[in-house]
Amino acid sequence: MASFILVLLLTILCTVPVHASKQLRFNKNGEFRILQVADMHYANGKTTPCLDVLPQQVASCSDTNTTAFIRRLIFAEKPDLIVFTGDNIFGFDTTDPVKSMNAAFSPAISSNIPWAAVIGNHDQESTLSRKGVMKYIVGMKNTLSQLNPPEALGIDGFGNYNLEVHGIENSRLVNKSLLNLYFLDSGDYSKVPSIPGYDWIKPSQQLWFQQTSTKLQRAYMNEPEAQKSPAPGLVYFHIPLPEYASFDSSNFTGVKQEGISSASINSGFFATMVEAGDVKAVFTGHDHLNDFCGDLSGIHLCYAGGFGYHAYGKAGWSRRTRMVVASLEKTDEGVWGTLKSIKTWKRLDDEHLTAIDAQVLWSKMGARRKKHIGHF
Amino acid sequence: MASFILVLLLTILCTVPVHASKQLRFNKNGEFRILQVADMHYANGKTTPCLDVLPQQVASCSDTNTTAFIRRLIFAEKPDLIVFTGDNIFGFDTTDPVKSMNAAFSPAISSNIPWAAVIGNHDQESTLSRKGVMKYIVGMKNTLSQLNPPEALGIDGFGNYNLEVHGIENSRLVNKSLLNLYFLDSGDYSKVPSIPGYDWIKPSQQLWFQQTSTKLQRAYMNEPEAQKSPAPGLVYFHIPLPEYASFDSSNFTGVKQEGISSASINSGFFATMVEAGDVKAVFTGHDHLNDFCGDLSGIHLCYAGGFGYHAYGKAGWSRRTRMVVASLEKTDEGVWGTLKSIKTWKRLDDEHLTAIDAQVLWSKMGARRKKHIGHF
Repeated sequence: MASFILVLLLTILCTVPVHASKQLRFNKNGEFRILQVADMHYANGKTTPCLDVLPQQVASCSDTNTTAFIRRLIFAEKPDLIVFTGDNIFGFDTTDPVKSMNAAFSPAISSNIPWAAVIGNHDQESTLSRKGVMKYIVGMKNTLSQLNPPEALGIDGFGNYNLEVHGIENSRLVNKSLLNLYFLDSGDYSKVPSIPGYDWIKPSQQLWFQQTSTKLQRAYMNEPEAQKSPAPGLVYFHIPLPEYASFDSSNFTGVKQEGISSASINSGFFATMVEAGDVKAVFTGHDHLNDFCGDLSGIHLCYAGGFGYHAYGKAGWSRRTRMVVASLEKTDEGVWGTLKSIKTWKRLDDEHLTAIDAQVLWSKMGARRKKHIGHF
Repeated sequence: MASFILVLLLTILCTVPVHASKQLRFNKNGEFRILQVADMHYANGKTTPCLDVLPQQVASCSDTNTTAFIRRLIFAEKPDLIVFTGDNIFGFDTTDPVKSMNAAFSPAISSNIPWAAVIGNHDQESTLSRKGVMKYIVGMKNTLSQLNPPEALGIDGFGNYNLEVHGIENSRLVNKSLLNLYFLDSGDYSKVPSIPGYDWIKPSQQLWFQQTSTKLQRAYMNEPEAQKSPAPGLVYFHIPLPEYASFDSSNFTGVKQEGISSASINSGFFATMVEAGDVKAVFTGHDHLNDFCGDLSGIHLCYAGGFGYHAYGKAGWSRRTRMVVASLEKTDEGVWGTLKSIKTWKRLDDEHLTAIDAQVLWSKMGARRKKHIGHF
């Protein structure tokens, strides 16, 4: 009996820290910092050449430049989560997808920072299928990636899941999700002969998103610590939505240097997100020369810009990344509250990791103002 | 015991014919003829004036003209099914929605022809809610309308269902659905403050459609009488899809005399239908001055044109309806086969019920040719 209790105690002791470490939380500064790495296009490391770099860069440039860029960013930005939004490896050129993934994700793994990934349209171009790639990722160290939600049987794609970011340890919102992150598989290529081009997010995925959003909103707005409006949500996937084409330089921040390579058909995920009401921003990759972020009907549609050196780019136009920082409000009494703002900027892979295009994606004050205006 | 058997026999005898009459079938000429009635806008009968008619028509014109038009069409076209695609009554002006519905559907009911209805954006504007209106319709005589599929719990809207059209009585395809009809509730107005205008078909409805289409395709292509490609599907609802705006007069048949009043956001139902692969045409109403039909990625998007006299229209431009006739092929041995073609035309409410704009929506030969080309 005593040994049974000992085993039980050991089990509990060994289990709790694992779960606790898996639960994302706002850090002690009241922030949650997300580094987005889009389109690494990692192949075989040192032997893999860079694309579209300046002549003087060619000789010494390889996948290791991509790795070095992540390392510098981790050091500079101290993210609480690293999100890889697909085309993590460039399947066509990898000799072994497992080795490529191990190398591509190694800066995240060795940093001990939790990370999450979705897949793009190039990850399955080697010997592993999309399911194979995502399954391998899920088993890697320090990742919070999931293959698919266990309750959503028959969902399309691989790598649809959500993560909650709870309140600060020992605060009154310790068990509430103050920021919700959604990850989806936007597929690779259309399977319908009459529709050329890229794939799209399917009804099964949208229904899962909708149900998850409803469940999270209900939990947040119910006791204990019932809140008045839903916790903001951020959505990460690879291929931009057709609605990314609604912008021109007058209503976005950043640049558009190539067409929007969305699916050629609109599968309605933007409508589903608008209707859900909690999503404040969407982050994709896929188009390496676009890095803009613009507001459409209350949802910011953002690119990260090209990151990887073995991916097409533009010589002289720095590889880049997108940071998102969500900040909590603090009362005069020094008590941490709910979300105050979500900001974003980009960092360039230059000497100073120059930060550009800072913008506010959402603020509590702005949301209140909008609600107020809406009432009159 | 004898009385028990008698009751059992009587039960079977009384039950079977009801079921049999409810099962839609191709008629003895190998045809299935569908009359679409869009936007009756029925109010209170004789006392309700007509809109947008010629000065000489005003005095004698009322809702009864709408009724008379249906009667003439039934006599001329001998439909096997009458489909009402919403705005059946104009709620704002009806004193009693039940009376209005009784009157509006009376020509269908008294003809003893099966009929099906969906609701538009005006049906609930009187004292009954959308659910109330649809529930009332479902209980009416001779209708095959359904409130919602029992298996799709929590589906959005009211009046999402499908009907199968089986092979000719005593033919080898008597128990197969050779033509599948889908009916959906396209809603009324957006419930999202940041999105103005009309409502849209939701993920829950699309998932139900997708699952139903998959199930029907599997049944059709499996034993007994396994077929090589899915049975064609036709889809009926009220509000046109955003993709209706993809046409100009060079690639449709009919006219476009006003803008496309779709939802201002794309909820992806067109993509879902294209992916399902069985749908050959979509039929809506809503825009009374548009009556065109055009092919986009293998799916015809069709308007019926304005039907009702208490609905906006254009004086001198006849009220109209859309007919769809699906025809079976017959072998040299006189045996009925599967579908050969689906044709459509419109009928005008003039002296001769003039038929215009006949076009082929789908043909077995055309589909074979496409498949053949697709292989090379």
